[in-house]
Amino acid sequence: MMHATEIIAKKRDAHVLTEDEIRWIVNAFVSGEVPDYQMAAFSMAICIQGMQDAEVYALSMAMLESGTTLQWPADERPIIDKHSTGGVGDKVSLILAPLLACCDLRVPMISGRGLGITGGTLDKLESIPGFRTDLSLEEMQQQVQKIGCTITGTSRQIAPADQRWYTLRDVTATVPSLALITSSIMCKKLAEGLDALVLDVKCGSGTSMHNKSEAHALAESMVHLGTRMGVTTTALISNMNQPLGRMLGNAVEVNEAVEILEGTGPETVRAISVALGCEALMAAGMESEADAAKNRLVSLLDSGQAREKFAHMVSAQGGDFEAERKVAQPFVLSSKHAGYVSDIHAGKFGRAVVQLGGGRQKLGGAIDPSVGIELCVEIGETVEPGQELVRIFAHYPPADPWMDALLEAIQISPEKPPAVPLIIDHVTANTA
Amino acid sequence: MMHATEIIAKKRDAHVLTEDEIRWIVNAFVSGEVPDYQMAAFSMAICIQGMQDAEVYALSMAMLESGTTLQWPADERPIIDKHSTGGVGDKVSLILAPLLACCDLRVPMISGRGLGITGGTLDKLESIPGFRTDLSLEEMQQQVQKIGCTITGTSRQIAPADQRWYTLRDVTATVPSLALITSSIMCKKLAEGLDALVLDVKCGSGTSMHNKSEAHALAESMVHLGTRMGVTTTALISNMNQPLGRMLGNAVEVNEAVEILEGTGPETVRAISVALGCEALMAAGMESEADAAKNRLVSLLDSGQAREKFAHMVSAQGGDFEAERKVAQPFVLSSKHAGYVSDIHAGKFGRAVVQLGGGRQKLGGAIDPSVGIELCVEIGETVEPGQELVRIFAHYPPADPWMDALLEAIQISPEKPPAVPLIIDHVTANTA
Repeated sequence: MMHATEIIAKKRDAHVLTEDEIRWIVNAFVSGEVPDYQMAAFSMAICIQGMQDAEVYALSMAMLESGTTLQWPADERPIIDKHSTGGVGDKVSLILAPLLACCDLRVPMISGRGLGITGGTLDKLESIPGFRTDLSLEEMQQQVQKIGCTITGTSRQIAPADQRWYTLRDVTATVPSLALITSSIMCKKLAEGLDALVLDVKCGSGTSMHNKSEAHALAESMVHLGTRMGVTTTALISNMNQPLGRMLGNAVEVNEAVEILEGTGPETVRAISVALGCEALMAAGMESEADAAKNRLVSLLDSGQAREKFAHMVSAQGGDFEAERKVAQPFVLSSKHAGYVSDIHAGKFGRAVVQLGGGRQKLGGAIDPSVGIELCVEIGETVEPGQELVRIFAHYPPADPWMDALLEAIQISPEKPPAVPLIIDHVTANTA
Repeated sequence: MMHATEIIAKKRDAHVLTEDEIRWIVNAFVSGEVPDYQMAAFSMAICIQGMQDAEVYALSMAMLESGTTLQWPADERPIIDKHSTGGVGDKVSLILAPLLACCDLRVPMISGRGLGITGGTLDKLESIPGFRTDLSLEEMQQQVQKIGCTITGTSRQIAPADQRWYTLRDVTATVPSLALITSSIMCKKLAEGLDALVLDVKCGSGTSMHNKSEAHALAESMVHLGTRMGVTTTALISNMNQPLGRMLGNAVEVNEAVEILEGTGPETVRAISVALGCEALMAAGMESEADAAKNRLVSLLDSGQAREKFAHMVSAQGGDFEAERKVAQPFVLSSKHAGYVSDIHAGKFGRAVVQLGGGRQKLGGAIDPSVGIELCVEIGETVEPGQELVRIFAHYPPADPWMDALLEAIQISPEKPPAVPLIIDHVTANTA
């Protein structure tokens, strides 16, 4: 017979919990025997005292086993997914799912909604009229078997312990825990029944991990855990000090993703999509050389095949790809100075999109798919006074002080800034 | 506008909270705006990260101000109270309230019930038939004005924030926090409108503080806080490695308290009662010399005046002092060895009383006033094989293994043990 207070006290006092203790408290939380207030105290104890690798493994397994793990028909096509820790302008999932499906991979991508400054893949896709993000597990698996990919919301059958716990953590200031973030991400992803998983751990002002050492610790923790759970797992750590691409919002990000799928669009978005795609092809054993993997992906983008797969996925999920994706009217901000663009603060642009109505501050809030922001310049470019820097898509002209503050989120300097790499590091089971 | 999650996160990250933040969250908890799960996470953050003196002060004031502070009629008699952190066999409150009332002090003692291995003053008094522990604040104040003392339970009007919070802490493993223990004790005591407060901080196996440095930290924390709140506050740190006195339970402890009030009874109980009484007389400015204070108290015990005051208090609260206080039948344990009694483990004896039904493991549980334990020997005495060591008052003979374990809680050694002081330390505003 276990007692919740004894398990909580053990973690409070920084002791290591056993697998049995962890499994017991997770199951008792799901069954309602352990109430929210006990789980809140337990979450805070984990937040402050941390967990060892074996505890994180036990926690992830307990949450995974609180629900279903997908079983797939025997098939030559490996099951793979990509997960990003979230960043401003990160629309890579929309590109990668169809792109990898073109490479004979099966991609059962379960995505989430936006919260705070980072947007959500499901919110973006819902700017496509009719697009369904509530597929049943059966519908989802049938679609993946048939066309190779899906992007949909989670089901109550997937890691219900995590769904309940995350809602509680959000309102008890217990989100920022390496152990809890790792297990929450990984239990959901591994419930997909994957052969391989590629992680994009963002680092900078436009995401939750602000410095490289935090991002590195999270990447290592997730790669360790995935490997221990028998799934080939690798991670890239990528720069999120500036937004990814030109477009920030929902409809406008779908439009930019489609540009990439057509072989055009901003180079940064294309580069990170291809880099993550290479990781996926190599992790799944589909390619052994990075150059060959890259060439294959680039030609699938340039030939329009990836776009065709995306259109196919949209229509399979009830969406009308050709219908207009409404974008609000543009208001232009111009530069007051001449010089080089030396910084575009991702965090401030992310917050601005939320303030326009394109993101949510609370779980369950509504969003407006038609609002957003377009960046007309990139870091390193020169600008002249009066040159367009930003277009704001909104229903009414934003107030002047708000626009002035946004303008200040773009730094113009007299000297050319040093180039900043998009991909900062690469973490595998061997390097982690 | 304050947000609970921001305040919780600040403490999670070991920052110092402002007075406004502390007052806001305490009030919002009482009003229901901050739910139990947020307060549980906050409690755990305080437990692990601690609080500075100014934060403990703000917390105590906020809890105090969540309810009433007693106002007293102008009168020459100072208002004083004693609080013990609780120990096995600690019946000193029953002695001290009438004893100090005999010295022209007013003693509005609000006491609690037992939980875990330490008994509760109210539970003990309720073994007197008819004794009421639910006086209204008005009844309580009238009685104190009239006869000088009362011992009663708390009212919903006294520090309601603490009452609600303590119940939550009990089930979330957040009781052992110096900041939370200090503020919980002091807000209730200071709501009594005191001029002076004497603390008995127990230290040893029969209480929550097992080592001297913990006990010292708690004593200092409470003395600091009382002083800061304008109340003359002193503390004794006393030995609780062995039970206090011969009698452990409820009715049997009332009987032993009455012996002390009649000038007889165990020397240890008399000594600590007089020591705490001296502290009280000097803190209240009624005596300036310890010897004079001691002589005054001893003569009040030996003359029977203190016993008369106790009988008066019992009858004022509806109790029948002359009625039989039922004690269950005795079962005797005898020594198997010859030698010196070198240890009597207070914690094990406290647990044994709970197991007999004389204490409670959960808030709100019922207790049996008639059961208990009598220790027939003291540390330092010699015993012979077959000599009575313990009498167990129970309704049925306890099982042999249980009695064997209890016997092992008394150590018999070939050598005379060193004398252990009853009072370990003395903490005042000057020494703290």
